[in-house]
Amino acid sequence: MSKHLQIAILGAAGLSGLELLTWLRRYPNATVRHVTSERYDGMPVGRLLPAYQGSSLTFTGHNIDVAECDVAFLAVPNKASLEWVPRLHAEGVRIIDLSGMFRLQTPELTAKHYKLAPEESWLGKAIFGLAEVFAEQIATARLVANPGCYPTGALLALWPLGDHLKQLKVPPVIDAKSGVSGAGGRVENSTTNYVDVNENLKPYKIFQHQHRPEIQLYLAQQGYPEEQLGDIIFTPHLLPVNRGILSTIYLRFSEPIEEVELRKCYQDFCADKSFVHLLEPGVMPDLKAVAHSNHCVMNLFRHENGQDWVIVSAIDNLVKGAAGQALQNMNLMFGLAPSTGLV
Amino acid sequence: MSKHLQIAILGAAGLSGLELLTWLRRYPNATVRHVTSERYDGMPVGRLLPAYQGSSLTFTGHNIDVAECDVAFLAVPNKASLEWVPRLHAEGVRIIDLSGMFRLQTPELTAKHYKLAPEESWLGKAIFGLAEVFAEQIATARLVANPGCYPTGALLALWPLGDHLKQLKVPPVIDAKSGVSGAGGRVENSTTNYVDVNENLKPYKIFQHQHRPEIQLYLAQQGYPEEQLGDIIFTPHLLPVNRGILSTIYLRFSEPIEEVELRKCYQDFCADKSFVHLLEPGVMPDLKAVAHSNHCVMNLFRHENGQDWVIVSAIDNLVKGAAGQALQNMNLMFGLAPSTGLV
Amino acid sequence: MSKHLQIAILGAAGLSGLELLTWLRRYPNATVRHVTSERYDGMPVGRLLPAYQGSSLTFTGHNIDVAECDVAFLAVPNKASLEWVPRLHAEGVRIIDLSGMFRLQTPELTAKHYKLAPEESWLGKAIFGLAEVFAEQIATARLVANPGCYPTGALLALWPLGDHLKQLKVPPVIDAKSGVSGAGGRVENSTTNYVDVNENLKPYKIFQHQHRPEIQLYLAQQGYPEEQLGDIIFTPHLLPVNRGILSTIYLRFSEPIEEVELRKCYQDFCADKSFVHLLEPGVMPDLKAVAHSNHCVMNLFRHENGQDWVIVSAIDNLVKGAAGQALQNMNLMFGLAPSTGLV
Amino acid sequence: MSKHLQIAILGAAGLSGLELLTWLRRYPNATVRHVTSERYDGMPVGRLLPAYQGSSLTFTGHNIDVAECDVAFLAVPNKASLEWVPRLHAEGVRIIDLSGMFRLQTPELTAKHYKLAPEESWLGKAIFGLAEVFAEQIATARLVANPGCYPTGALLALWPLGDHLKQLKVPPVIDAKSGVSGAGGRVENSTTNYVDVNENLKPYKIFQHQHRPEIQLYLAQQGYPEEQLGDIIFTPHLLPVNRGILSTIYLRFSEPIEEVELRKCYQDFCADKSFVHLLEPGVMPDLKAVAHSNHCVMNLFRHENGQDWVIVSAIDNLVKGAAGQALQNMNLMFGLAPSTGLV
Repeated sequence: MSKHLQIAILGAAGLSGLELLTWLRRYPNATVRHVTSERYDGMPVGRLLPAYQGSSLTFTGHNIDVAECDVAFLAVPNKASLEWVPRLHAEGVRIIDLSGMFRLQTPELTAKHYKLAPEESWLGKAIFGLAEVFAEQIATARLVANPGCYPTGALLALWPLGDHLKQLKVPPVIDAKSGVSGAGGRVENSTTNYVDVNENLKPYKIFQHQHRPEIQLYLAQQGYPEEQLGDIIFTPHLLPVNRGILSTIYLRFSEPIEEVELRKCYQDFCADKSFVHLLEPGVMPDLKAVAHSNHCVMNLFRHENGQDWVIVSAIDNLVKGAAGQALQNMNLMFGLAPSTGLV
Repeated sequence: MSKHLQIAILGAAGLSGLELLTWLRRYPNATVRHVTSERYDGMPVGRLLPAYQGSSLTFTGHNIDVAECDVAFLAVPNKASLEWVPRLHAEGVRIIDLSGMFRLQTPELTAKHYKLAPEESWLGKAIFGLAEVFAEQIATARLVANPGCYPTGALLALWPLGDHLKQLKVPPVIDAKSGVSGAGGRVENSTTNYVDVNENLKPYKIFQHQHRPEIQLYLAQQGYPEEQLGDIIFTPHLLPVNRGILSTIYLRFSEPIEEVELRKCYQDFCADKSFVHLLEPGVMPDLKAVAHSNHCVMNLFRHENGQDWVIVSAIDNLVKGAAGQALQNMNLMFGLAPSTGLV
Repeated sequence: MSKHLQIAILGAAGLSGLELLTWLRRYPNATVRHVTSERYDGMPVGRLLPAYQGSSLTFTGHNIDVAECDVAFLAVPNKASLEWVPRLHAEGVRIIDLSGMFRLQTPELTAKHYKLAPEESWLGKAIFGLAEVFAEQIATARLVANPGCYPTGALLALWPLGDHLKQLKVPPVIDAKSGVSGAGGRVENSTTNYVDVNENLKPYKIFQHQHRPEIQLYLAQQGYPEEQLGDIIFTPHLLPVNRGILSTIYLRFSEPIEEVELRKCYQDFCADKSFVHLLEPGVMPDLKAVAHSNHCVMNLFRHENGQDWVIVSAIDNLVKGAAGQALQNMNLMFGLAPSTGLV
Repeated sequence: MSKHLQIAILGAAGLSGLELLTWLRRYPNATVRHVTSERYDGMPVGRLLPAYQGSSLTFTGHNIDVAECDVAFLAVPNKASLEWVPRLHAEGVRIIDLSGMFRLQTPELTAKHYKLAPEESWLGKAIFGLAEVFAEQIATARLVANPGCYPTGALLALWPLGDHLKQLKVPPVIDAKSGVSGAGGRVENSTTNYVDVNENLKPYKIFQHQHRPEIQLYLAQQGYPEEQLGDIIFTPHLLPVNRGILSTIYLRFSEPIEEVELRKCYQDFCADKSFVHLLEPGVMPDLKAVAHSNHCVMNLFRHENGQDWVIVSAIDNLVKGAAGQALQNMNLMFGLAPSTGLV
């Protein structure tokens, strides 16, 4: 029987924090000890989440005793993550950080895209928490950099290509569409104002989104020949739905590839994994299939010329793209079955 | 042939202002001379509204020469309306005010619900711009108080009752549902944040909305025996759509009324009006029927006991509930056909 | 330790059936043995619900061995429920029926509103599954008539009134708004066609909805003086959201009631219940608070005259209004803790 | 002063037909004489469109006297278009056909994608109604094949490239997202069922949509070297909005191109056109900008390598992608100013 985990959620009243709380309400062998929120300091969690009515769990400020926790989730702004990580680490608490601060491996790249960055030594400690790919390293990690939502959807769809990445003729085109919760839904600005988003669709940060280098960095680890093909092309769009990311990915290979060959790469990748699925030929991935779940569904579509392929993946940005994958990482870190507490 | 009107829109970049501009783009015999917006001072209108691409119309600050205008629309905050009205009036410009400042007839009532109020003498000059009811007074008005969106939907549905208002057993219950543009859609706050509104429905300001006294005040003019029955009951709800107000109104009469009798009241009321329609028996009013139009559709539903009735009306809050009715009032003020430029 | 339950879901591919499956995926001490669907006979459940990928659970036709099951959920059309109930009962399987067939207590009333009806003897066996109210009878029931979605929202909001129901001056007005899944979302017709529902709001079946007598019947059991006040007034509206019912209920009492007095009725009712909550004064119930959960939140709003009250309740129609309450009833029937498997 | 046009709309109760009627309600110098609809034969138009309340215009069957009309719009299924065209032509009525039957130039190509096709001689008479490109031919056409919605959005975005089309390294990738009205919104099937579309996003007909050859055919006329580069890549997605198409187009050129050079191509193209606009650098096209208007907005985004470009265009599929462009074509055919009656 596994250890009963003591958990802290720092920044628990944001969208990712509330999603963590929602899943943890029914988690076996885990207790949420601390939930911090400057805005709601002193308020019972039950007032935001009826499932916690009757529970005594209450939002607090940041002055808490973290030492009693096994693991802490950081669902705070980038700057706050920079401050929390050393403090938690010093107390022996293992960390799952949902900010962008520890994903990009070098201070230079991080600072370029986020304006601020951790020291190099901390980046060296961080393991990229793409659970299906880095499970082994995550198991012993003390600091997990939980992937961005777009990179999760894109990398799961491209990782199975393996050596085929070297056979691309031009960089992959990733046309991604995200629900509003992925665009910082709780922040109140015109980006997420109802009448500006509803009945609308809008691309943003073309060629400039901070998740592009994250995708590029890990794709290079899997063999993408950056120097030869150049930057991947990544265009995010703001979609009038609450949650979900659909990534439509365009590949042109130098030579035709057979359907069976490429499908086998994906079948092998998915074979032993709980949350990643290749759909049957012709079935379209969509957001509905994965909403409120930790699953990723994907499929491949081959042009009759064999060179042009479309790969489509779908995830829930708040679950597999944030809180769900964070819990999946917690399961890996503490030796729980991968799908514990998740659906 | 009617005069060619020169128009100013003060506060032209808000939702009501943009709606006015959209309709005026195709208006016969009218030219928009001035459009003010502190936020967009100096920006061509075409950048917000593609229909104005190629036009030289440009947002300006408030330092404009209004004297050359025949009519000005005030689509500014309440406080700004208080300041503009005397200035425009002094210059001989006729005014259609979309704020709440000039609707409630007394400084006391206005201040109670809006925290600020005009002096009594100005209230005396204002005509309530419910176009179907006060057409005659509007024709010669120099200051029209354009009705609130909820009062427009509710009063059009209740006005035809006439003397039947005196036969109510209890106050009417008005359960109203409005699209987000009616709740100050451009103001950025949590009320109108996408993820808070989408896939949601929420009542607000129960017993406390500032449009309740506006409905009550004019209903009393039509014979509602306030002292005997008490306050009308009015509950607004925030609906996850951009535009539209559906009002479901519950009436209990002291004695049964025949279907044909009450329908006749409404048929008579609608008979000579371009924009108000009683649907055929059994047909349900809905938002779709009136979206992007100046029309109001309504219908009556009689319980078999004859005492209980449901009246439903639907309008587009940005058109009949704001900009469209304002233009309808302009038509009345300048002797144009009532439906000029409107659909 | 409680028994491990064997479960059949008849009509498992409809919206309620899929919702049952979603919740049962993570249920402790329960195994889904049979899932029937004429349309998907032979298809693995994982193809509709990614959470079941990797599971061998497969939709079948109706020719199954139900005897091995402890409990069966009927999520089939009314007619099919009439056929299944005797068959299941004969096999000793306890039944939770989500159709309308066994709720209205008499064949006459049932036939009037549903065109068909069970024999009287079967109606006598059925217990109305409003879990918070009839928990004791449900515990030993062999046939539970799971309440309609609208009646669940309305009755939970009105039940706590108790004797105050006798002090009403006129019948309660229930203005209810439901997401599309409550209107038979999977049935393909113009009622649920996207462009007819999106950016729209529409009342339907005014004075004629089959859930009105269900509310009236059980409210009478709680003391509503039908003969004196007449029919309750109930108006359903189709809301452009997937799930959720908000009921705005208007009460006028003969005499003023103090805030503290009526709130106490609700506090007492909610005190020992996991899923029903009175919010703090002034907090507005909304759909978001209860989406994807089995909770019902409600609140009371008192007019300063003390006679007029607004009660608002919110539930998720697919959970507390259907599948969730069905599982809550299963928990009661088999001695499990009331909130087992539910959030 | 131009001739007063007599108009017939065949298939007037579908989404395109109703959109035509909505715009024609306020059209100068035009009268709708006939509106046919098998389903609504005998019903006044005012019952579907409140703007026509008070008008005597009534849906009829197909047995009408078309000879009195100057122009007929065909908004009927493909098969019906095949039957109507010879009949109308024989009567001397000029035709604007909104079906797919007369766009693809050869019976073979048409039959391949639509299962049925006109005879070659009829195809020879048809002019492709992309108004900004073929204005001259349209002016004298007797049969205009109104473009598909997706091709309109894609071709307007690609046409200005001119000779640069020959410098592409790989085929353009067109990732298009359409509102539901474009997917046959009125047809009742699971594609357009509310709960299947809302809060969802789904690609469909990848590599197989019938609008792909339409785009390819006319792009080849503009110089796209098909034989060298192969098929364009086109992926439509179903978006949870009523109306609008956003096309995100990916181009990789063999050599870098300067920003100013490519922008100039678009500026030149847009210079003398009422409805097509290149936005200022960095401004994102979105659906909101063009909803309920005949405008197309677009913009170019250059990767720093100069080889990779993203072009984004937005139109309203029911207006510029259907009814609006059809009316624009009517204006061209009858010598009216291009923007007559349109906004």
